Amino acid sequence: MKMKIHSSLRTVEWKDNAVVMIDQTKLPNELVFVKYTNFNEVADAIRNLVVRGAPAIGVSGAFGLALAALQSKATTKDDLLVDLEQAKKILFETRPTAINLAWGLERIMKTARNGNTVSEIKDAVINEAKKMADEDIEINMRMGKHGSQLFHDNDTVMTHCNAGALATVAYGTALGVIRATKESGKKIKVIATETRPVMQGSRLTAFELKHDGIDVSLIPDTAVGYSMANGLVSKVIVGADRILRTGHVYNKIGTYQVALMARQHHIPFYVAAPLSTFDMKSIPKDVVIEQRKASEVTGVAGKKTAPDDINVINPAFDMTPPELITGIITEAGVAKPPFEESIKKLFESKL
Amino acid sequence: MKMKIHSSLRTVEWKDNAVVMIDQTKLPNELVFVKYTNFNEVADAIRNLVVRGAPAIGVSGAFGLALAALQSKATTKDDLLVDLEQAKKILFETRPTAINLAWGLERIMKTARNGNTVSEIKDAVINEAKKMADEDIEINMRMGKHGSQLFHDNDTVMTHCNAGALATVAYGTALGVIRATKESGKKIKVIATETRPVMQGSRLTAFELKHDGIDVSLIPDTAVGYSMANGLVSKVIVGADRILRTGHVYNKIGTYQVALMARQHHIPFYVAAPLSTFDMKSIPKDVVIEQRKASEVTGVAGKKTAPDDINVINPAFDMTPPELITGIITEAGVAKPPFEESIKKLFESKL
Repeated sequence: MKMKIHSSLRTVEWKDNAVVMIDQTKLPNELVFVKYTNFNEVADAIRNLVVRGAPAIGVSGAFGLALAALQSKATTKDDLLVDLEQAKKILFETRPTAINLAWGLERIMKTARNGNTVSEIKDAVINEAKKMADEDIEINMRMGKHGSQLFHDNDTVMTHCNAGALATVAYGTALGVIRATKESGKKIKVIATETRPVMQGSRLTAFELKHDGIDVSLIPDTAVGYSMANGLVSKVIVGADRILRTGHVYNKIGTYQVALMARQHHIPFYVAAPLSTFDMKSIPKDVVIEQRKASEVTGVAGKKTAPDDINVINPAFDMTPPELITGIITEAGVAKPPFEESIKKLFESKL
Repeated sequence: MKMKIHSSLRTVEWKDNAVVMIDQTKLPNELVFVKYTNFNEVADAIRNLVVRGAPAIGVSGAFGLALAALQSKATTKDDLLVDLEQAKKILFETRPTAINLAWGLERIMKTARNGNTVSEIKDAVINEAKKMADEDIEINMRMGKHGSQLFHDNDTVMTHCNAGALATVAYGTALGVIRATKESGKKIKVIATETRPVMQGSRLTAFELKHDGIDVSLIPDTAVGYSMANGLVSKVIVGADRILRTGHVYNKIGTYQVALMARQHHIPFYVAAPLSTFDMKSIPKDVVIEQRKASEVTGVAGKKTAPDDINVINPAFDMTPPELITGIITEAGVAKPPFEESIKKLFESKL
């Protein structure tokens, strides 16, 4: 099916007191929009990957909480805050690894706590959530500007999963850097891994890059080593779901092995993520890796590809240690090793 | 669908002047047998992965040539040899990387050349092909015996693709070693990678190990690094489609990266293959890596998972260099580094 994504199109947005999202489980075969007026529906949408990608989840959580405020029958600020805390808990528990979700929810709660009356709080949280969506795009474009300086004419860049427009409100983190590189006049090609089990690479990255006229080739996840060993890859860029102050990066399952192979083949490995993806408090043993259901691995698009009742190990994320990372691209600049120091500096520059 | 594979069941066999195969494209959902009386059908079956796995392809090629002999209308030895040479060419060109196919075809041609009359040659080639099938099982069991000494009680062994009963006439190479280890009384668990794009790991390896009561867990190819980094893997074993005299191993796409990660995590990496898999003449630059059609990557089980007309890189095999390999298990013993020397010794011991 042919379709067009207009440049004004957003992965998630607030429209007439409702949250409107692209249903990403239907891509690339159909472009379907879904509209929610109940925060529980937004929680389900996050859980079932209708919307995914750390920055998009952060904004979706904020919009979900704004819906919860609208839904609330509370007549006092205190009662409204109780309702919001309950909704926050349900929204938070949908995906435990991406830190942006906690960040987005907390920012809305802070806005709510600062309000005075119920109606003032309702208006304020809606405005704050809409502001976060707008900021997400600005941040991605700033990230793109910083990152594009690291990429050269005729680079072929491998990316894993989808850290694109569809993982954010628009423009993308890793793919935002690729877009900015192209916009700066450099020729750039992309190799996208299909990213089993949920296939965000083939369904989403290949889809949005092809739509934008960026040269993209799809490979199975098994062909990463082959592509690097045969000189097909000059750089790697991925997004992140959580980055620790030490530079440990949590991202889509398979990122760690792409980084390990990049190191082995002397290929620079970059991560692009907004400062909202950083978790400055946790250490690796604190981070919960989400384990997802077996059916994602035992079948594809509703077709069974494995025997009944087989054991499955299906972690959604893995951890890439700082020693495999060449640089972390943020809206405040690029952090380079030693990361503990350079990440601290980026945050200080934002104060 | 539930089904039983009897221990007497063979992946490919000769029955009443026909070749009977399990149609592996239908597994794990259906156990279907196909019967061929025309060598062109056997060539199609090899090309379309009805039968796959280097040893099984070698024997299938031999059976295909036996069918060609039966089909031939030649009345002289010379004319029969011309017909066989033509059939050999068609059968050979189905899969360029697995060396066993060339080996199987050449062994039948040699038998044919040694015969005198047309009817004597027809009988001889059928008997030789049947003998090769029987030998394949014996060889696998000998390989299993040698290999099982390298595996210990409570090992968890990762395997990639299917080097099992379904890749051979029966018993398997890599999975034969796992079967022999279990038969020797040791507890052993298996982690099977699903092996995109054709999913031989989920469709075939998970299927045959579960059937045999061997503890098997399935992972997406993206979770190899995660599994190793989290201490879930104690050893790796894979099969091979071609091994050079220098110990360079050509096997299913993704093998190289599993080996690279095993090295990084100090996990022993073994290859199990019969001597018929060795190519003692070629050097790496001589080996053609088969590139397969894009549709294997853009869809799964008939379902589209990528946008239309996307570029695809889909190599069927990759090369694992000898420095990543701990040992190569054959029916004549285990070769260890330096491989050029140890492989030579294995062949000398067979003379």
